[in-house]
Amino acid sequence: MKLAILFGGASYEHEISIVSAITVMQKLPRFELLFVFCDQDHRLYLVERSNMKAKYFSAGDYKKAPQLAFKPGGFVQKRRLGSTEYDLPVLNLVHGADGEDGTMAGLLQFYGIDFIGPRVDASVLSFDKRMTKWFARGRGVAVLDFEELTPARRDVKLALPCIVKPARLGSSIGVSVVRDADALDYALDVAFEFDESVIVEPFVEGVKEYNLAGYQGENGMVYSIVEEPQKADFLDFDKKYLDFSRTAEVRSAEIDAALEEKLRATFARIYEGLFEGALIRCDFFVIDGDVYLNEINPIPGSMANYLFDDFEGAVADLIGHLPARRRIAVEYRYIHTIHAAKGK
Amino acid sequence: MKLAILFGGASYEHEISIVSAITVMQKLPRFELLFVFCDQDHRLYLVERSNMKAKYFSAGDYKKAPQLAFKPGGFVQKRRLGSTEYDLPVLNLVHGADGEDGTMAGLLQFYGIDFIGPRVDASVLSFDKRMTKWFARGRGVAVLDFEELTPARRDVKLALPCIVKPARLGSSIGVSVVRDADALDYALDVAFEFDESVIVEPFVEGVKEYNLAGYQGENGMVYSIVEEPQKADFLDFDKKYLDFSRTAEVRSAEIDAALEEKLRATFARIYEGLFEGALIRCDFFVIDGDVYLNEINPIPGSMANYLFDDFEGAVADLIGHLPARRRIAVEYRYIHTIHAAKGK
Repeated sequence: MKLAILFGGASYEHEISIVSAITVMQKLPRFELLFVFCDQDHRLYLVERSNMKAKYFSAGDYKKAPQLAFKPGGFVQKRRLGSTEYDLPVLNLVHGADGEDGTMAGLLQFYGIDFIGPRVDASVLSFDKRMTKWFARGRGVAVLDFEELTPARRDVKLALPCIVKPARLGSSIGVSVVRDADALDYALDVAFEFDESVIVEPFVEGVKEYNLAGYQGENGMVYSIVEEPQKADFLDFDKKYLDFSRTAEVRSAEIDAALEEKLRATFARIYEGLFEGALIRCDFFVIDGDVYLNEINPIPGSMANYLFDDFEGAVADLIGHLPARRRIAVEYRYIHTIHAAKGK
Repeated sequence: MKLAILFGGASYEHEISIVSAITVMQKLPRFELLFVFCDQDHRLYLVERSNMKAKYFSAGDYKKAPQLAFKPGGFVQKRRLGSTEYDLPVLNLVHGADGEDGTMAGLLQFYGIDFIGPRVDASVLSFDKRMTKWFARGRGVAVLDFEELTPARRDVKLALPCIVKPARLGSSIGVSVVRDADALDYALDVAFEFDESVIVEPFVEGVKEYNLAGYQGENGMVYSIVEEPQKADFLDFDKKYLDFSRTAEVRSAEIDAALEEKLRATFARIYEGLFEGALIRCDFFVIDGDVYLNEINPIPGSMANYLFDDFEGAVADLIGHLPARRRIAVEYRYIHTIHAAKGK
């Protein structure tokens, strides 16, 4: 089965994306893979499998690789004489900006390329933490209360401790837990460094966290095991990053069947009618037995492969079940009735 | 002042976009304009000003025009020997799918092209009627109640009369007013022809409608006059279409200063922190003195030029005040600490 892994991107999670690509490569031994690296200037390179190592990218060696360009249905490698075309489905593994904010999805949809990953709309509402909240509430899924701040409106009404987050970063960069009123201003300054929109939400001590991944395949929704992530106050960039690259077995969280069922039902409510084509991970809080959506990772680190018994089978199932592209036949029916359009 | 008008697209509103482009061309006499037509197969053509008429497109004559491709910062016209590059800001005038669903915004953002129009996130939440509702409620703006339906969940609980709409079409296509229970099934069938997600909302007889356009310029928010649109039960495709091409003077709605202020304040609440860079039109309902957001048109027909006293000045103001592109400097800091990334 053929698949292009698209990774890199102009994002704070550029490095994470490289690690994800290397990990996923190792987890898909039976696939025929093409590696398409997007650098920070949005140039695309065709990377040999043997070059899929950290140093090749950090040292800039990738610049010697052949460049690719998007073309309808895939990629093209232009040569002095002729060109090679690659028509195959794509796994969007660009994390954070570009990959998860809808930019890459827009490109892939414009060029009519089949891909695993969130579509433009699903990207936006998982990437922007404000929209995730608005959307979840709209679907009847509980979220923690929050306030939306701007550089001009920095007054926080929520009680401390609170957590301050840039609204549109796909990682924990710029995030602070504030326990002391004196620390709030600095935390806001840090967050506004990364985004003009910042959210503040209550920081709940000792909250239970559970992660669940899933996708819609041939036979309906497929769920991973439920993971109870390693806890610190909150996972910062370093910890998340190390987390993303793990390949060890993860044990299922010790929860009862009723809670697992509740998490799955909440996941389905989020997924349905928006995330088809993507394997996503939802991170939940459980407080007094109630499930709250914390965030949606529409392109989880290393595709959350470690949460699935048969990851390779999951990817194959997804590829066989990607959303159909709607072909809109343009007709010229009205235009001649419009005086202004006659150009007179 | 230079500006490329990007129009067409693979959308049910392809024709409307052509009419918009012709109208806007007439309304920007002092601009140096480039006309970039996107056909239904996503090929781009450079159209001469003299060819900006209905027949040129409907007859397929545009296929003889030189083709363009996106390139960083603009467009490129490739020739057998050498190529011509066009680096200039773009007015995204592609209505409906492609233009307003975030696809085109994703492309423009990926290629680092300055443009007038909604960014990816703003596109998604104005294009998808469900998201508009969720978002508006999140911002404390009232909307009519609604139900979200899928082909598998077609039971409507709302009382009749109701209005049935595909969730993700930028026009009135597939929309029906249902007054009679017998007509509901057919209306749903029609809507599901266009989208797997459909919304139903109450149809309010004799509701007052007001449209207000605006944008953020050099000196803050700039608002158009308030228009009371011509009423039918609801505006269908034909009426809207004709509406889009009007060039006649529109009279301000006869409303008091308090209501106008309320409409502006609601507009600002929607716009802030999401729609910067775009000139949008918000369509409101007023029921018992309360303002409800009906829909957001992030690329209104012919840019709602007829609502502005100095449309040309408005466009120049917008161009001078487009959102800054954030340049993310990718650093390789963590990757060498990750065992899996070493490729061993």
